[in-house]
Amino acid sequence: MTSPTRAIVAYGPYQDGGWKMQDITLRPLGDNELLVDMVASGICHTDLHFAGMDSGYGVCYPRIMGHEGSGYVREVGSKVTSAKPGDPVLLSFSPCKACEQCRTDHPGHCVDFNPINFEVRTDDYLVAREASSPSTDLTIHGKFFGQSSLASLSIVNEASVVNVSGLVQSREELALYSPLGCGIQTGSGAIIQAAKADKSDRVAILGLGGVGLSAIMGAKLQGCSTIIGVDRFDSRLELAKELGATHVINTANMTSLDQLTSEVRKVTNGLGTTITLDSTGVPAMIREGLNLTGFKGKLIQVGVAPATATLEIPIFEFMVAGKQYMGVVQGDVQPQTYIPQLIRWVQEGKFSLDRIVKMYPAADFELAMKDMQSGATVKPVIVW
Amino acid sequence: MTSPTRAIVAYGPYQDGGWKMQDITLRPLGDNELLVDMVASGICHTDLHFAGMDSGYGVCYPRIMGHEGSGYVREVGSKVTSAKPGDPVLLSFSPCKACEQCRTDHPGHCVDFNPINFEVRTDDYLVAREASSPSTDLTIHGKFFGQSSLASLSIVNEASVVNVSGLVQSREELALYSPLGCGIQTGSGAIIQAAKADKSDRVAILGLGGVGLSAIMGAKLQGCSTIIGVDRFDSRLELAKELGATHVINTANMTSLDQLTSEVRKVTNGLGTTITLDSTGVPAMIREGLNLTGFKGKLIQVGVAPATATLEIPIFEFMVAGKQYMGVVQGDVQPQTYIPQLIRWVQEGKFSLDRIVKMYPAADFELAMKDMQSGATVKPVIVW
Repeated sequence: MTSPTRAIVAYGPYQDGGWKMQDITLRPLGDNELLVDMVASGICHTDLHFAGMDSGYGVCYPRIMGHEGSGYVREVGSKVTSAKPGDPVLLSFSPCKACEQCRTDHPGHCVDFNPINFEVRTDDYLVAREASSPSTDLTIHGKFFGQSSLASLSIVNEASVVNVSGLVQSREELALYSPLGCGIQTGSGAIIQAAKADKSDRVAILGLGGVGLSAIMGAKLQGCSTIIGVDRFDSRLELAKELGATHVINTANMTSLDQLTSEVRKVTNGLGTTITLDSTGVPAMIREGLNLTGFKGKLIQVGVAPATATLEIPIFEFMVAGKQYMGVVQGDVQPQTYIPQLIRWVQEGKFSLDRIVKMYPAADFELAMKDMQSGATVKPVIVW
Repeated sequence: MTSPTRAIVAYGPYQDGGWKMQDITLRPLGDNELLVDMVASGICHTDLHFAGMDSGYGVCYPRIMGHEGSGYVREVGSKVTSAKPGDPVLLSFSPCKACEQCRTDHPGHCVDFNPINFEVRTDDYLVAREASSPSTDLTIHGKFFGQSSLASLSIVNEASVVNVSGLVQSREELALYSPLGCGIQTGSGAIIQAAKADKSDRVAILGLGGVGLSAIMGAKLQGCSTIIGVDRFDSRLELAKELGATHVINTANMTSLDQLTSEVRKVTNGLGTTITLDSTGVPAMIREGLNLTGFKGKLIQVGVAPATATLEIPIFEFMVAGKQYMGVVQGDVQPQTYIPQLIRWVQEGKFSLDRIVKMYPAADFELAMKDMQSGATVKPVIVW
């Protein structure tokens, strides 16, 4: 059965005005797919990144973006076992479930993460057709991150589904929790699960967007003794303080980034950090992150650097200091267990998700994008 | 009281013939020092490194090298509590015992590791005087690694002492165990303690000297499923197989090091390793070590690279794969607990230390050095 729906379709890079809200008709559901009535979807820089290029890796138009969806299941494919119609669900990335990392609870490092979540595989991923011209063959691609949540109704991979029946009581809650499946788990998971931060840790978070501020909240939850927020905007630094940062450093007026290391050393008794998380992806900042990390400290890479960027590590000095450099995707969490935990923390008042989320009606998606890009909003969520 | 002894004194770089066996007289013992009758001392490339340069960092002549000593305590300073005269001891490096790493059981990453173990601090470290000309003021520096074990009697820091009373019954055993305090704990500890290897691990060891072969034995002890030894010499590869390597790869005739990655992938079902240990310190080999490490795999740096050498890491690719690069010194072990464990493994036949050690009378120290440098002997031990 085909289903009519309303969706934000990317016909080209966002900055060229290529995104349009329109009516489309979804193809019939596959065996391992669910039809989800979207309640809301967070918007993330990754949506713009993968629909912001003219061509190349993972880029394909027309396509429906969105990868922080939440909603209610309307219909399930014949082989779906993890949810039934009516269940509230949060959506995350899709792992292959077969590779070594998937089998050992590291689905964020699935060997097929990129092809499954970013690329379009012709056989599987044709999703929709323009409702206004049903006789034409224009195909709109879906299943970005297995979900393409920028549609009021979407076809979703079962692997992306986190069933939150029993945990979530209302549409409002579902809307608030929608970003948990990407940015929030990325930042908080990197600190809690990947770095295993505890009270003894001195943490620096480089970059205070949705990921960085979630890392601040993760460090607060773990009771880390020192939590340093680093950004170029005072508004973000203020927010970081409210969310748990014990110190903040503004790099906007630094003539050289080594001043950042000096500042971090000042507030860590000269020792540097035990955990540094880079959420910026900016090579110069990552290099400085390595410098401000102390003996036996870990530098955790979660920010997306340019494809050809490198970090040059002085081998002997790095070894003597016993430092570690770690790559972490999606907080290295298992969403089906970690997201329910995040929800409980929000419900218990331990994780102030509402402080970084702002809701927009779906029709105002362009304002939501603009506010995200200007920094006025940390985490825009569009509501259907 | 001063004590006469025989020692190998370095008057200049070893390669210039600057090392001489001679009689000297030790200064009186300090409060936190022990006088140890050396039974034996392993020789390590680090001895030659720090007495192989004409000038610069940590170089000071005349000096007594040696940092893998074992012996019996003859006398203790007034504040020494960890051993008494007559106790058998093994000697390791000296940590400061006060810094954050020392207090959290990571003494190999003591912030003062280099000054304490390599450099000469004028106030503390003047040790000896030539016996043949007691009236002259020539001072011979000691306490290399807190022990300067290339002497039949030496003044040792209490922090370097591992008391093995009750564990070791004879001089022969003490001689065999002498290298445990540096090279052997470095290789085996990096695999067992730092990487926490287990049965599921696919391990590659780059370079099969004393450190690399100890890492092979460590991986065997942990039951690692795949253990790949990599070297340029067939004799070392054969020995690695006897000690537990499931596969060996000779790089001597490779026209390009990326062939090594191809070979490793062949024997790991295309996945690469989960743990790669570099004991070579050769930058090109370290780079290839990063390539042959699989998703979620760790590259462990224990080999000493040239001071200015760097490793260039492709940030995005490294992050997506969830790799880790870790600097590890002295296996990140606590010698006072780890060395007794190593001794029990040797005694239970689980760690074939005797297969890599060769004994030389102290008078033949030049032959021992020559055999180490040519590769004829993996781990020479001179016996007093």
